Amino acid sequence: MSIAITVFANSPDCGRGLARDMPVRWALEEAGVGYAVRPVLISDLKTPERRARQPFGQIPVYEAGDLVLFESAAIVLHIAASRKGLLPHDENARARAVMWMFAAVSTIEPAIVEREAAQYLDRSEPWFDRRVQRLNGAVRSKLRDFSARLGGADWLDGAFSAGDLMMVSVLRRLEGSGLLEESQNLAAYVARGEARPAFRRAFDAQLKTFRETSQPAGD
Amino acid sequence: MSIAITVFANSPDCGRGLARDMPVRWALEEAGVGYAVRPVLISDLKTPERRARQPFGQIPVYEAGDLVLFESAAIVLHIAASRKGLLPHDENARARAVMWMFAAVSTIEPAIVEREAAQYLDRSEPWFDRRVQRLNGAVRSKLRDFSARLGGADWLDGAFSAGDLMMVSVLRRLEGSGLLEESQNLAAYVARGEARPAFRRAFDAQLKTFRETSQPAGD
Repeated sequence: MSIAITVFANSPDCGRGLARDMPVRWALEEAGVGYAVRPVLISDLKTPERRARQPFGQIPVYEAGDLVLFESAAIVLHIAASRKGLLPHDENARARAVMWMFAAVSTIEPAIVEREAAQYLDRSEPWFDRRVQRLNGAVRSKLRDFSARLGGADWLDGAFSAGDLMMVSVLRRLEGSGLLEESQNLAAYVARGEARPAFRRAFDAQLKTFRETSQPAGD
Repeated sequence: MSIAITVFANSPDCGRGLARDMPVRWALEEAGVGYAVRPVLISDLKTPERRARQPFGQIPVYEAGDLVLFESAAIVLHIAASRKGLLPHDENARARAVMWMFAAVSTIEPAIVEREAAQYLDRSEPWFDRRVQRLNGAVRSKLRDFSARLGGADWLDGAFSAGDLMMVSVLRRLEGSGLLEESQNLAAYVARGEARPAFRRAFDAQLKTFRETSQPAGD
């Protein structure tokens, strides 16, 4: 069954692999599954046609036959559940991998996204510095807890799983903030994820899409 | 196999069923599974012993034999996956139910929690009103999208599922804000969830725990 995902045309992350198609591409590469991409302009995401498939007007949407899915973590879990390599066979270990997927998007990511949003929404406010201090503190608190749990392990629970895939994807959003580098084991964990051949293939593919769809600057 | 979950002793929500043990209790009641509760004082959540089971120092932790799980949505999914009644049998419908669980905690809840946190963190700031306006706007935007998708349906995708359970749980956090009532179908959706016998049993059980563990005021 052929698979297609929607991605940004002219992605606002400029091809840094921080848009939400990236974990889905990565999971498909880990699973060795081919897919097509459908680039969508941001200005087209809120049309009734798009919203029929993605009610919040976001990317990615995953389509395979009759199945239409959104929410990147849900798509990754769907890919992982039906193929080898992204979820352990043992039932308890599988439940823990899913737990780490939820922890990534529900416990860790919101603090990161809130900090990120303040960078462009509040920059000109007189209280910006104080707010950044607080938001950095909230991110640090989550990273400290997560770093203590990861310890010296390569991956969260034995072999690499969809839990690691989502966690690395979420932590990558801190790129350039300097916060990740404060925990050496977390920086190494993310680097380990990014060094996986499937990650590289996914990254290169999204960069290629960006280059093909982006408007030339100036003129 | 006997199941136990940690819950707040003297819950800061004063027994309104807004703490994160509530969706887990609800799922267990829907599945007809008995469980024990282990109340924990908030001041004890960050001890090394607790963090060994919940690295972020939160409730609930679910324990059943060798399995130790945290993240309320992951626990709900684990309960739903191994029992009848909370996930559809059809594979595609099941993937969509999981999608709604992720949408609840990852797309809708962060805007609600950010708004809630501002209510007690920023109340004395000169820019509080402006900030509340913006955060209300962010919540309204998500609710509007979700309301349009739900339309006149009773539940998100046919019969009641773990997706509805998590979505209703997340929307209940808006209690008292007046925002939910702006979308009549969403207010009715939440009321429909709260009217389920399993919800009532879970609610009564957490209220009982609150009454048994709360300190008498004053003296």
